[in-house]
Amino acid sequence: MIDVTDKKITKRTARAVGKILIKEKTMNLIKSKKTPKGDIFAVSKTAGINAVKQTQFLIPLCHNLGITHCEIDFKIKKNAIEIITTVRTKSFTGVEMEALTGTAVTLLTLYDMLKPVDKSMVISEIMLLSKSGGKSGKWLRK
Amino acid sequence: MIDVTDKKITKRTARAVGKILIKEKTMNLIKSKKTPKGDIFAVSKTAGINAVKQTQFLIPLCHNLGITHCEIDFKIKKNAIEIITTVRTKSFTGVEMEALTGTAVTLLTLYDMLKPVDKSMVISEIMLLSKSGGKSGKWLRK
Amino acid sequence: MIDVTDKKITKRTARAVGKILIKEKTMNLIKSKKTPKGDIFAVSKTAGINAVKQTQFLIPLCHNLGITHCEIDFKIKKNAIEIITTVRTKSFTGVEMEALTGTAVTLLTLYDMLKPVDKSMVISEIMLLSKSGGKSGKWLRK
Amino acid sequence: MIDVTDKKITKRTARAVGKILIKEKTMNLIKSKKTPKGDIFAVSKTAGINAVKQTQFLIPLCHNLGITHCEIDFKIKKNAIEIITTVRTKSFTGVEMEALTGTAVTLLTLYDMLKPVDKSMVISEIMLLSKSGGKSGKWLRK
Amino acid sequence: MIDVTDKKITKRTARAVGKILIKEKTMNLIKSKKTPKGDIFAVSKTAGINAVKQTQFLIPLCHNLGITHCEIDFKIKKNAIEIITTVRTKSFTGVEMEALTGTAVTLLTLYDMLKPVDKSMVISEIMLLSKSGGKSGKWLRK
Amino acid sequence: MIDVTDKKITKRTARAVGKILIKEKTMNLIKSKKTPKGDIFAVSKTAGINAVKQTQFLIPLCHNLGITHCEIDFKIKKNAIEIITTVRTKSFTGVEMEALTGTAVTLLTLYDMLKPVDKSMVISEIMLLSKSGGKSGKWLRK
Repeated sequence: MIDVTDKKITKRTARAVGKILIKEKTMNLIKSKKTPKGDIFAVSKTAGINAVKQTQFLIPLCHNLGITHCEIDFKIKKNAIEIITTVRTKSFTGVEMEALTGTAVTLLTLYDMLKPVDKSMVISEIMLLSKSGGKSGKWLRK
Repeated sequence: MIDVTDKKITKRTARAVGKILIKEKTMNLIKSKKTPKGDIFAVSKTAGINAVKQTQFLIPLCHNLGITHCEIDFKIKKNAIEIITTVRTKSFTGVEMEALTGTAVTLLTLYDMLKPVDKSMVISEIMLLSKSGGKSGKWLRK
Repeated sequence: MIDVTDKKITKRTARAVGKILIKEKTMNLIKSKKTPKGDIFAVSKTAGINAVKQTQFLIPLCHNLGITHCEIDFKIKKNAIEIITTVRTKSFTGVEMEALTGTAVTLLTLYDMLKPVDKSMVISEIMLLSKSGGKSGKWLRK
Repeated sequence: MIDVTDKKITKRTARAVGKILIKEKTMNLIKSKKTPKGDIFAVSKTAGINAVKQTQFLIPLCHNLGITHCEIDFKIKKNAIEIITTVRTKSFTGVEMEALTGTAVTLLTLYDMLKPVDKSMVISEIMLLSKSGGKSGKWLRK
Repeated sequence: MIDVTDKKITKRTARAVGKILIKEKTMNLIKSKKTPKGDIFAVSKTAGINAVKQTQFLIPLCHNLGITHCEIDFKIKKNAIEIITTVRTKSFTGVEMEALTGTAVTLLTLYDMLKPVDKSMVISEIMLLSKSGGKSGKWLRK
Repeated sequence: MIDVTDKKITKRTARAVGKILIKEKTMNLIKSKKTPKGDIFAVSKTAGINAVKQTQFLIPLCHNLGITHCEIDFKIKKNAIEIITTVRTKSFTGVEMEALTGTAVTLLTLYDMLKPVDKSMVISEIMLLSKSGGKSGKWLRK
């Protein structure tokens, strides 16, 4: 685990995105709230926030730090649901892994909630959108 | 959580795949074992196996069951590393979510081990390849 | 931890109840879906199911066993929300603690979701309603 | 999860109370230290302190923060044991949920330690007694 | 993780031992129950039992299985406390790591409870005493 | 849990050591990389770092704090592997238990990786080497 003892405590933000490809037929079930395992958005969001806090135990070389904010947003597309996770801290090191892990677990939970309908869904394009704070400063995906 | 009390205990297997897209320059560092945070394969595989066992706590509606086997394989491609996770159990319900979660966390750990070199890597195409066992029997991705 | 190695594997069920006393004013906010932290039912239910699976780590002398079913129901009363948690297993020992712990954590999460509105809510009358299965058989609260 | 990034780090305390109603016959066993599963006070206190630290994972929208103090006290009543949990931190947000969760898990563990004697015990009146620190300052139950 | 899917479910036991070397002066404090952090035996035993159940998450290649019994015994020696941990299961694979991990965490907790008095204590000779059950059958330390 | 709310935040380091006694025959397998369960060093190091972050949940009276650095080193001896774990924080209290727990779990994982070859290995002499920071300042094993 990289030594961050002497790094400055600064506000740090990271934002990650990802999506799950869903057939139109299943998207229609979602829109009409007829999915078999209940409210897919509330459950997967709760799972995602929980995963943000668990990142320190899932990713071996991640530091454990206090998360001061976490927001998970859903964008309903024609054949996909897109997740954007924003995480903030005021700490020695960044929260990129937290934002990516929150995104991945939200998507996995969506898969779990919908798999009685269709097992062929694909989780894709999980990536960092931006990060700010710390010595390396701002980073923006081109 | 779906009631599986009266389902039959059978051998069940699930296999999932996923990949992380990595620039050629970073792939060369990997091949020459010069990545900054140590052995990316051993650490990410260990994280993935651990995540398979944690699936029950990460995915809210997943049952907790005894995993009897877990294997994580890496395929080095030109611009990507591909992960295949195989999970087995002898239980009331399947291990699809375990295979998918193991794949996702292995990929996230690869990202973490390589992010000092490149933050723009993309995790993609996490999906179920096959599952067997249980009432619904065999399923194979077309 | 009591030795259950030689006990028979049987279907076992436990049902627990509990409630949180909520002022009428807050109950009206709930009914009109205007609580400040989002959908209190979906989030607290997800937390409760998760806690059922965590019981083995929260209650020191509890055995770890495979939960085959968990259901959490809400009853909206005039000045309270009542929780009923039903847990099932097919195992060496019972799931009373799982049903009670699921009830308690669901109620604590309701408190957390509503505390910006009122900190004085009281969690009360968490108790076992019934259990069945195992050597001691059926038990029903009088 | 509410954004607390810009909140001031202050000393914060929360105190919660709760009780478990126990028949006189069982209370006599407790007083004569003849309960079947060992020292109910040491085990349940250890479980309660552990639960205070786990609150961040049990209550979905709770922040993870460093607990700087936790104390759990028992009051032996005629037909009940009462728990008072005091938690302190020096952080961005309060520890009300930690004090309430510690109280609930201590009471659940008492139930678990005593249930071979009596399954009908009731856990009751878990509530916040007071909190101090932070922008909203002192709060005292009337 | 080794594939145990086709192994037979049998009763399996493992017993491990270990000790912590403690100065006579500290041993006298223990005997007169004057240690600064409370009852060292109840707290460390509770921690040890908890660790037995956590072994699956601490030791990466350990299978997760249902523990049916766990007992931790203390032997007070002149300059040491000795721990013997017995673990049982009825499962596909053995519980040697569970018995060793329970022993180690009980000893670490004893250290933690006594370290305000003496930081120089040494934890030593953690080893398997015996195991039984499974294909390889009985093993006894010579 | 001792009250550390008013203690000063300072840089704190702890270093612990421990070893596992291994027969020459097994040591030769290790040196020729022919152990049956894969790379023993990468897996056990990953487990050790993970355990450092889990110390707060394993040792009941340990505070939860942000680890800013963790390093685990191996020394190959003739009949043993020695582990040295260094942990750093910038916090209210020290990280002695984290360094000791990391050492113990690394050694337990080495045992697990090698036990198909030899079950008689002994884990020994886990002890604090030094600590610095905080009110009590520097401590060095004589």
